[in-house]
Amino acid sequence: MQQQISVITLGVADLAASRRFYSQGFGWRPVFENDEILFYQMNGFVFGTWLKPALADDMQRAPTGGDAPFALAHNVAAQAEVAPLIDALVGAGGTLLRAADAPPHGGFRGYVADPDGHAWEIAWNPAWPIDAEGHVRFAA
Amino acid sequence: MQQQISVITLGVADLAASRRFYSQGFGWRPVFENDEILFYQMNGFVFGTWLKPALADDMQRAPTGGDAPFALAHNVAAQAEVAPLIDALVGAGGTLLRAADAPPHGGFRGYVADPDGHAWEIAWNPAWPIDAEGHVRFAA
Repeated sequence: MQQQISVITLGVADLAASRRFYSQGFGWRPVFENDEILFYQMNGFVFGTWLKPALADDMQRAPTGGDAPFALAHNVAAQAEVAPLIDALVGAGGTLLRAADAPPHGGFRGYVADPDGHAWEIAWNPAWPIDAEGHVRFAA
Repeated sequence: MQQQISVITLGVADLAASRRFYSQGFGWRPVFENDEILFYQMNGFVFGTWLKPALADDMQRAPTGGDAPFALAHNVAAQAEVAPLIDALVGAGGTLLRAADAPPHGGFRGYVADPDGHAWEIAWNPAWPIDAEGHVRFAA
């Protein structure tokens, strides 16, 4: 079985607010968009933002609300990039969860929630290489 | 800004139950594990399963419970692979959300929740190529 995740899909309430967060905060450009879904081509997979009712209908499970125990991380190349990116994301409609500081396991990181409450870790992790195509490799 | 997600981290209540789902259901092998976190090397990023209290402490936001509006997808190479993989995941501790059928946009898919309720779509999407390294490309 291929050790592979093809798509990450986040349910969103307002496509425009979500698009603003990802395009103005991260600077990402969708590869496809219509009136219910946007897709972004990522490093080896596709990232989608889909209106919550459509996602709920597709997975046949309605979200019950609340903050979920999961996080997506975007790693940057230098410690000095962490705080400015967090600021940019907050400026683009995000909510600060944790200001950047140094975790016990090394590196530097903070957390921002997107307009729908999905948590993003912005991290500098010098131990994990990122190649020119954005492919990230685990290294102990 | 690199259009890149480095890590997907899911909060889990029981590492052994989670490990069983991913290793017996999907056949994936962790590249690292200790008594609070497992990491899997994926197609261009790292997938982590971390004890919920540790993740909550790291992101400084306690999960409030409930089913979240997000899904991860694992795409397979043929329609005939979808239902057997869903069966294997249910056999490894998952819960069926939607039995496999054909969505309006084409292909074939179903949904399973992992032992912690995180939703997985198992899909055959003939429009989106997957290369030998598992890198998935959006195609309209």
